[in-house]
Amino acid sequence: MEFYFLGTGAGIPSTERNVSALALRFLKRRSIQWLFDCGEATQQQILKTPISLSKIEKIFISHLHGDHIFGLPGIIGSRSFQGATSELVIYGPPGLEDFVTQALKVSHTYLKYPIRFVEVTKSGPLFDEDGVKVEVLELDHVMPSFAYKLVEAEKPGELLIDKLKPFAVPPGPIYQQIKKGEQIRLEDGTILNGKDFVGEPKRGRKVVIAGDTRPSEKLVEFAAGADLLIHEATFRSDLREHALQFGHSTIEATALLAKKADVKQLIMTHISSRYAGAEESLLNEANQFFTPTLIAFDQMIYKLT
Amino acid sequence: MEFYFLGTGAGIPSTERNVSALALRFLKRRSIQWLFDCGEATQQQILKTPISLSKIEKIFISHLHGDHIFGLPGIIGSRSFQGATSELVIYGPPGLEDFVTQALKVSHTYLKYPIRFVEVTKSGPLFDEDGVKVEVLELDHVMPSFAYKLVEAEKPGELLIDKLKPFAVPPGPIYQQIKKGEQIRLEDGTILNGKDFVGEPKRGRKVVIAGDTRPSEKLVEFAAGADLLIHEATFRSDLREHALQFGHSTIEATALLAKKADVKQLIMTHISSRYAGAEESLLNEANQFFTPTLIAFDQMIYKLT
Repeated sequence: MEFYFLGTGAGIPSTERNVSALALRFLKRRSIQWLFDCGEATQQQILKTPISLSKIEKIFISHLHGDHIFGLPGIIGSRSFQGATSELVIYGPPGLEDFVTQALKVSHTYLKYPIRFVEVTKSGPLFDEDGVKVEVLELDHVMPSFAYKLVEAEKPGELLIDKLKPFAVPPGPIYQQIKKGEQIRLEDGTILNGKDFVGEPKRGRKVVIAGDTRPSEKLVEFAAGADLLIHEATFRSDLREHALQFGHSTIEATALLAKKADVKQLIMTHISSRYAGAEESLLNEANQFFTPTLIAFDQMIYKLT
Repeated sequence: MEFYFLGTGAGIPSTERNVSALALRFLKRRSIQWLFDCGEATQQQILKTPISLSKIEKIFISHLHGDHIFGLPGIIGSRSFQGATSELVIYGPPGLEDFVTQALKVSHTYLKYPIRFVEVTKSGPLFDEDGVKVEVLELDHVMPSFAYKLVEAEKPGELLIDKLKPFAVPPGPIYQQIKKGEQIRLEDGTILNGKDFVGEPKRGRKVVIAGDTRPSEKLVEFAAGADLLIHEATFRSDLREHALQFGHSTIEATALLAKKADVKQLIMTHISSRYAGAEESLLNEANQFFTPTLIAFDQMIYKLT
């Protein structure tokens, strides 16, 4: 998985940070790309990356503030202009479909592909497709706002070649049977139990991408043990009251939440433009409470192996 | 007048050209700024200029295609976020108000200033305010599309100081009377006719900014003798049929139109991204038919003195 931080600012764009958007490339299934939030100029940010609009299959919207959705009409139109014909699915709170539909209608934007909207209204499972399960958690913002959790299916263990060697198994489909853990019979009558020759299954990766929110206790359980938590940290820790008033989190609150959830990596994003140039001190502040933390910046690429 | 070319591309953004937008700063009345069209990421383009959102008083929309309007909701919200309290007037075809209003509503964008929408539906005068008259012409596109003409009021002639010198006029408000062309009486009884001491009035500047269009004969008259014509030239001259089909103009057609209208300066914009890197040859092509022509580029500044 490769995460492209397309916009890491809060509220309005600045010269350093564009408004919210994050693209995900599934490296082992290169043709699949997802987008999380889509602030204005997300398609312009994408021009600087290897992301291809036609390969974006799903867009997940955390909430309906303009800095998270105003890039949608443009990117949807450009995806068609560039020749995409495959379905685009858009997940988000009620109101999103009306906004997009009206924008496309007033601008006479005719699409060469179908769009499907899936309303996200409450916490719970969203879908389980193609080896990835997506689940939703309602957060605590000034309007309905959601976190999305991606959990990959468990991967079967690898074939233990060295352990199998003494049995001189002949080449052929029999190896697939062993890998599946089936019982097989060799020509000399030896019976092998596949399960004995296959390693431990590999746990799928778990990633949580949260929208704008006050620190949410529910998120601790939702993100427990995640390989990666991407969470807003709009303000420094001294602006706690201000953050709560506007439905946001501080660096301290976000870092403590990551600690409680025992995540393996925290990435803070949605950083107020008032901190331009002070990224190092933001990181120092975060590190007092939790490591490893990264402060996202526009065009940052994070590879989760 | 200073023109900031914020987006000079056609249809979708490219790395070289963003979608349509043009800002105008009235230099002698520095606080006034106008915007013509507002494609996605216009506010991001403005971050690279001295334009201040709070000082934009009027936005003129040529037509409702997404590459000309999808930047509106964001710029309107950011203008408020930056503290503007003065009215914003938006001129454009029917449908614009609904689009903007719904986008602001769904995103819970609350403004600290009033917006007034003025529907533009047909050719004719739009307003005459503060020394600038604005007129509209309906063009020939695949949807209603308009050109805006700005005509400054005639400026009174300058005081002919040398001619006045022999009369030894004493300092005071009497100079204003002479400048106004009034008849005045000096202390020694001499009567002076103000008109004799004032130069020729100076014609106001005339600028035409056209939206997407096929070559329009009506524009020849509308733009006749203009100091500046800003007009689309989406395609090279060999794509004439293609241009007509999609409601656009070629370089040749636009240049010939400028020649017929006898404008003093032509600036071509709304250039297809297929010509990236070929700007010099576009200009050579244009110069075969009309000079002086400029091919606009993003962040180009044109000063009209």
